[in-house]
Amino acid sequence: MGLTGRATALLLEKCREENPLVQCITNFVSMDLMANTLLAAGASPAMAHSISEVESFVELASALLVNVGTLSEDWAGGMKLAALTAGRLRKPWVLDPVACGATPARTSLCKDLMALGPTVIRGNASEIMALASLGGERTRGVDSSHPSEAAAPMARALAARQGCIVAVSGAVDVVTDGTRTLLVGNGHPLLQKVTATGCSVTALIAAFVAVAGPEQALEATAHALAYFGVAAERAAVDEAGQVRGPGSFRVKLLDELDLLCAAQLVHASRIGRST
Amino acid sequence: MGLTGRATALLLEKCREENPLVQCITNFVSMDLMANTLLAAGASPAMAHSISEVESFVELASALLVNVGTLSEDWAGGMKLAALTAGRLRKPWVLDPVACGATPARTSLCKDLMALGPTVIRGNASEIMALASLGGERTRGVDSSHPSEAAAPMARALAARQGCIVAVSGAVDVVTDGTRTLLVGNGHPLLQKVTATGCSVTALIAAFVAVAGPEQALEATAHALAYFGVAAERAAVDEAGQVRGPGSFRVKLLDELDLLCAAQLVHASRIGRST
Amino acid sequence: MGLTGRATALLLEKCREENPLVQCITNFVSMDLMANTLLAAGASPAMAHSISEVESFVELASALLVNVGTLSEDWAGGMKLAALTAGRLRKPWVLDPVACGATPARTSLCKDLMALGPTVIRGNASEIMALASLGGERTRGVDSSHPSEAAAPMARALAARQGCIVAVSGAVDVVTDGTRTLLVGNGHPLLQKVTATGCSVTALIAAFVAVAGPEQALEATAHALAYFGVAAERAAVDEAGQVRGPGSFRVKLLDELDLLCAAQLVHASRIGRST
Repeated sequence: MGLTGRATALLLEKCREENPLVQCITNFVSMDLMANTLLAAGASPAMAHSISEVESFVELASALLVNVGTLSEDWAGGMKLAALTAGRLRKPWVLDPVACGATPARTSLCKDLMALGPTVIRGNASEIMALASLGGERTRGVDSSHPSEAAAPMARALAARQGCIVAVSGAVDVVTDGTRTLLVGNGHPLLQKVTATGCSVTALIAAFVAVAGPEQALEATAHALAYFGVAAERAAVDEAGQVRGPGSFRVKLLDELDLLCAAQLVHASRIGRST
Repeated sequence: MGLTGRATALLLEKCREENPLVQCITNFVSMDLMANTLLAAGASPAMAHSISEVESFVELASALLVNVGTLSEDWAGGMKLAALTAGRLRKPWVLDPVACGATPARTSLCKDLMALGPTVIRGNASEIMALASLGGERTRGVDSSHPSEAAAPMARALAARQGCIVAVSGAVDVVTDGTRTLLVGNGHPLLQKVTATGCSVTALIAAFVAVAGPEQALEATAHALAYFGVAAERAAVDEAGQVRGPGSFRVKLLDELDLLCAAQLVHASRIGRST
Repeated sequence: MGLTGRATALLLEKCREENPLVQCITNFVSMDLMANTLLAAGASPAMAHSISEVESFVELASALLVNVGTLSEDWAGGMKLAALTAGRLRKPWVLDPVACGATPARTSLCKDLMALGPTVIRGNASEIMALASLGGERTRGVDSSHPSEAAAPMARALAARQGCIVAVSGAVDVVTDGTRTLLVGNGHPLLQKVTATGCSVTALIAAFVAVAGPEQALEATAHALAYFGVAAERAAVDEAGQVRGPGSFRVKLLDELDLLCAAQLVHASRIGRST
């Protein structure tokens, strides 16, 4: 059996009560949507990346997100110091290895960050396969058209080796700690048509892990994906039953993330256990 | 007696006629909303931060905004040079000390910028209290839950010491030159749910001070806050009288900033004088 | 005779089938709208600017966009290396010389980039006149109020000298290779009220030139401008026939870019030939 929608709703409620501060070191494209996504979930975003202050900020934060999207040399130092500080202070941190495998510089940075022990890694199938293959797991090439399930075996191997949670986004999201695997069936194809939706759900994962605690990181990751996916399903269709365009979908996604109530989540969340 | 809504409407009209160029050195999260806010008010945004060109840009601009949100070492030099140039050319400039007090690097940068003589400083109660305490005013700690009125005495002391206008955002906005204090009653709680709304109203203040002239900086700051607040009030509720979600609120806020007419402002602007 | 709406529709269809990867080195303000514009057209955006990886990214990309909007010293090297690599690999690249002429640093960077041989240059009349005057063409000063037609002779001279396509945005867009000149009559004044719309259409030009091939760069540029302009016309008016505010216009623009079908483009595209 999987997780109940009631558990998703309870964790969201806890997030809104505790208002965790999530420090985000993320790409330029995603900042607006990510900050608004966190606000809609009741969390507080703090976008601070500079090596001169990341240590102080991680001390204040409940969780850290590191996203390598618009990689810059001068940001890489801030990312590493922030991750190191989170580890030292035993605060959860989440890695989003955007386009890992696309260029040597990017792959190298992701490798360095992975060595600092993220609590959760979330990516698409290609990114997770590229990350996994850094450690010796074989890959048959990086192809963004890989379905998430195809990456499940490598995700499990990566999670086991790293001792962390690995989430693979796709039509069905795969979330694993190497032993147990959850499958999240929520979401909508329109998410692919709006930039930074994947980045934003990774920030939500950081918020949810912060309030659930690190022992519940597997479940918290699945709940964050389900919550975001349910909001997307509701936002995708207008009052007349027509699928929206991507512009209005993005607007409604934020509305739904904010307005979703427990009863709606209870019935819509679909988190199963892999057999 | 406070300021009339007619005065708010006249200043907005002047802004639309004169089309002031507002140079913005601001954080990455706020750039899109800030630029669109300025355009809706009839001003022209110019986002230029590089130390290699800020002097030339300040020469072209009618006002400068400096916002330290996503602090970077290599941007700090541009901020200081731009502020220095604005002072030399006697052009108004506005400081937004985002999260001042949160980290030593941030507090230090805000202190350096404050020494360069901003025309207006706008922040929330915590930021203004952190700034004020740098100069010796006592604070009982920085807490973002402070209401704006609690910061009023320190805001007055800061304004008097600096010889500038200080605005504290909150349910009621406090605007003071150290002697006279105005209270702006417009706004809506949904503004807290959308990132960069505070940053954007600070840019509006720069535009309004540019067209009103530095002697009218107190009044211009209050008018900008009232105009933004009225637009927020109108944007917060949909046709059926329901409060919107934050996604559609952000969209409607820009619509209202653009479409607001004088008659609507005349009746809705609420700027009182502190007694 | 000009180009048919059918040809515009066919090129859009090709873009959706081929899904070109467009690498964008662009300003911070434009990233969200630009990425979503490319996604709506069926292209894939990749925002990568770092000198440590631009060579690898250009190898993967079908086309490159360089936009100097928020000029930074440390980005300039990445821009030049990317442009150089595109030239070496004979991949199309498009230059958006934002605010060229406003400051010496900006003009100098645009000059350096122009020397690297862009396939297409798109700007407003002032920017194109500033660029053209760098090479000796006389200008009567840079004034953003110049209509695009006034810049047509200088655009033709610039195109002939550079051996590239030059597009001047305005109420009527002028597109020229120095010999042939096309005029695009689509668009809407609301585009001026939304930041980054000009930047975003330049990215569309890169996508369209990638799928049309460099020999068709003149036509592809005109088709991209027509497609974007038709979407703007449709987005500008609501169901009741009222002109929208800029917030909802921006949302609808993305919807229309995504939902526009061939039949709608066939009848609305207005590309004439200059006589």
